[in-house]
Amino acid sequence: MPVIVPAREGRAVQVRAGQRVRVTDLEGGQVGDVFAFAAQDVNEHLSASHTRAATSRLFPAHGERFVTDRRRPILTLVGDTSPGRHDMLIAACDPERYRALGVAGFHASCADNLARSLAGLGLAVAVTPQPVNVFMRIPVADDGRLSWLTAISRPGDAITFEAAMDCVFVVSACPQELVGINGHEPTPLAIDLLRSE
Amino acid sequence: MPVIVPAREGRAVQVRAGQRVRVTDLEGGQVGDVFAFAAQDVNEHLSASHTRAATSRLFPAHGERFVTDRRRPILTLVGDTSPGRHDMLIAACDPERYRALGVAGFHASCADNLARSLAGLGLAVAVTPQPVNVFMRIPVADDGRLSWLTAISRPGDAITFEAAMDCVFVVSACPQELVGINGHEPTPLAIDLLRSE
Repeated sequence: MPVIVPAREGRAVQVRAGQRVRVTDLEGGQVGDVFAFAAQDVNEHLSASHTRAATSRLFPAHGERFVTDRRRPILTLVGDTSPGRHDMLIAACDPERYRALGVAGFHASCADNLARSLAGLGLAVAVTPQPVNVFMRIPVADDGRLSWLTAISRPGDAITFEAAMDCVFVVSACPQELVGINGHEPTPLAIDLLRSE
Repeated sequence: MPVIVPAREGRAVQVRAGQRVRVTDLEGGQVGDVFAFAAQDVNEHLSASHTRAATSRLFPAHGERFVTDRRRPILTLVGDTSPGRHDMLIAACDPERYRALGVAGFHASCADNLARSLAGLGLAVAVTPQPVNVFMRIPVADDGRLSWLTAISRPGDAITFEAAMDCVFVVSACPQELVGINGHEPTPLAIDLLRSE
């Protein structure tokens, strides 16, 4: 049974070492902010900057591993049926981001979704790590400029990870509708825990 | 009077809003890991991923601002006499990095230099933020691959920042000699505090 991540919300699941976890874009064109934390100590988290150092790539290739801020492998990229556009450069959206975009009052955010999802497991982290933004399309030009393009994942496209350690895996269905990354209409995602291979 | 950052070491200085701070590569070809923290609360730090979101660039252009994890401007890039190759993708080196490179026992690292420099001011942080790696040459290929090239900054080349808030500014003269980024011979840097404009 998949765990549905409703539009604009987040969900956390616990994944055992060797287990696989799949994130599906149910309706297409939807970014997911993925976070992963060591089950033994959630202060150890998947780190984008350490992963880039480990892989010498902006985003891991098939079979390559995401590592933590202690340089330990936490997830391996094992499957991707989407067009393969994912981001590992951009911070999670947060209340400050929406305030700067002119929103008065509450707006759902990936940082807030992370905190709520972890709280549901009785967990908390001091810092929002930089997420792995699946299906997010941020191409880098030769001069280093970044473009914020609408996701081109199709309904049912999915990316699959294998856990390299017991971990807490969190997905936020990004609530950003003011910038075009989700086509101005946030939609749900799904998380599937697959059996160990 | 400049603050000399000896080869393989770090130094912290306190910078007032409006003040300028210059990092000079004294002998050339040396990477500096730069960190900045809000003076009022060092849990707020210059964040690479939030800065990329703010500037839509891999590295800010002249006149653009680095922001914190709370999206507040902390530094503005106001001068650069170097060839302009700087990195904001790669994590600070740390004991785990050198262990993975085969070093047994102690090896100086930028993460350790940061902790020691802050401790000298009676400060500590729970997490090593992703640094701004001045003079570090990590080009990104069209396919997202990263290359680790030797710094091409010349003796006396300097990059200058203006503080947008009172901050603690830390520079580590990167002790990495196993990977070629510093030409296999770490050398010193200098920090100059310039008067407000």
